[in-house]
Amino acid sequence: MKKANAPKIAIAVAFFLACTKVIFGILVNSMAIVSSAADSILDVISSSINYIAIKKADEPPDEKHPYGHAKFESLATYIQSLIILASGGFIFYKSILKIVHKQAITDLNTGIYIMIISLLSTTLLVIYLTIAAKKTKSSIIEADALHYKVDILSNLGILIALIIIKYTNFQIIDPILSILVAFYIIYSAINLNIKVSMDLLDAEIPAEVKEDILNILKEFDKYHLDTHRIRTRQAGNNKFLDMHITLCRNLKLEEAHKITQLIENRLKEKIDNLDVTIHMDPCDEKNCPGIEACNNHKIRID
Amino acid sequence: MKKANAPKIAIAVAFFLACTKVIFGILVNSMAIVSSAADSILDVISSSINYIAIKKADEPPDEKHPYGHAKFESLATYIQSLIILASGGFIFYKSILKIVHKQAITDLNTGIYIMIISLLSTTLLVIYLTIAAKKTKSSIIEADALHYKVDILSNLGILIALIIIKYTNFQIIDPILSILVAFYIIYSAINLNIKVSMDLLDAEIPAEVKEDILNILKEFDKYHLDTHRIRTRQAGNNKFLDMHITLCRNLKLEEAHKITQLIENRLKEKIDNLDVTIHMDPCDEKNCPGIEACNNHKIRID
Repeated sequence: MKKANAPKIAIAVAFFLACTKVIFGILVNSMAIVSSAADSILDVISSSINYIAIKKADEPPDEKHPYGHAKFESLATYIQSLIILASGGFIFYKSILKIVHKQAITDLNTGIYIMIISLLSTTLLVIYLTIAAKKTKSSIIEADALHYKVDILSNLGILIALIIIKYTNFQIIDPILSILVAFYIIYSAINLNIKVSMDLLDAEIPAEVKEDILNILKEFDKYHLDTHRIRTRQAGNNKFLDMHITLCRNLKLEEAHKITQLIENRLKEKIDNLDVTIHMDPCDEKNCPGIEACNNHKIRID
Repeated sequence: MKKANAPKIAIAVAFFLACTKVIFGILVNSMAIVSSAADSILDVISSSINYIAIKKADEPPDEKHPYGHAKFESLATYIQSLIILASGGFIFYKSILKIVHKQAITDLNTGIYIMIISLLSTTLLVIYLTIAAKKTKSSIIEADALHYKVDILSNLGILIALIIIKYTNFQIIDPILSILVAFYIIYSAINLNIKVSMDLLDAEIPAEVKEDILNILKEFDKYHLDTHRIRTRQAGNNKFLDMHITLCRNLKLEEAHKITQLIENRLKEKIDNLDVTIHMDPCDEKNCPGIEACNNHKIRID
């Protein structure tokens, strides 16, 4: 599955919904449908940012971005989380206004039809994006799926409210449902924001992957005197590791390098998309295990 | 000058202005002043984010953030750029509404007094922040200064408009000035955004610093066979470098390490806040300069 396909389909669905809502909103002169159209236009913009970021993130490292372009994806996801947060805040604000101003909803039938179309197409899109996110392990497609899941909820909220109002004329149900939806949206946005901030803030890789790295280093205990200053960070699916390793001062560089190569290869074999930089330190003269240990190393390596 | 002082003073000024505007806005029942108060409340929030980020950025590296916390400052600056961008967009939107709805401004005198107070205190704040940004070389204080500079402009725009309206009743001048201000704000926000994105996207350090590094590496030409995979990135004022260096395969690790130490020390001496990780590669057997070259190295090092 190509990563870049997911946002393309999302853009198409959002664009279709935006057009439908604008046309019907103007035809029946309904503010509710037009403001829902504004949300769909925001969706088109946000999925377009994702499309560009995914394209960019796949580019290999170059002169300007020597560590690759994966953080374009992280930053786009971050922007996405802020857009979701803002739309949650906006729904909350509009709901309060509705309660204060006691605006009655008109055009119930058109509203219900538009919301059913919107709900069905968005649900199909979310199912597709969720599968795509799992297959590609892409944070940005996951963010996109969350974004449209939030749209399902807000559409469902509007639909239920419209139906209840149609049969009971209980107008206040609309802003009450909207406020509940707004809280859920804000909660989801903050979660996504915290998760992707780790990437942007150069936080350590997840504890279980770090654990795997430390276990692999332990396997090579006999080859080195110690490992220290182990630092990790990640960008999208890519993980970066740099560390120091202490080896016998009497080893030849060729032999010492073979040890780092062994460790590096083993790490890369076990952990996907890992970038490793190992700095070699010589042992102290006092603590030197002596030439015998060096020979020992040599025998093991060859 | 302590970095954390700058946002504290900014918060105090913004808080004072927010209170003044809210009280007078309600007293004279002016929407223009109340919406200007909203801007000041946004300023309090934004400078508070900066304060937290500056505190956080100064913390030393720890288990969770092995590369330090400087990117907290970058991310806060990024958020700041989006807030400035949004307020530019909002001013533009309100100006268009004013032109469309031909709203007349009332309470001219109170508005003029409030704007003069706001203008004077914000100008003093900007002068202080600009000096602080230069002294501390902090991107976030620079962003804060820009933010309040933008406020000066929008306050000045409102003040000039109010004065012109008072003497000529030429109402349309208010939204026209506001649109000009909005464009300038959006332009500044995009510039700041692009600048700080480099940090977050792991872009290379500025060309002139990279040049300095390459020149220093050239000084050590005699000690190594080549340098390759030179990668740099930055976070706030901190710069990160990792690179590979090829040395004679016959050198002892102790001797090889001395060469990397020499280079590392020289780099750190010349370039502030540089973090260096050097990986040593042995030469090819074919291209080996031979034991004589190794001795040559040894003589130079000791």
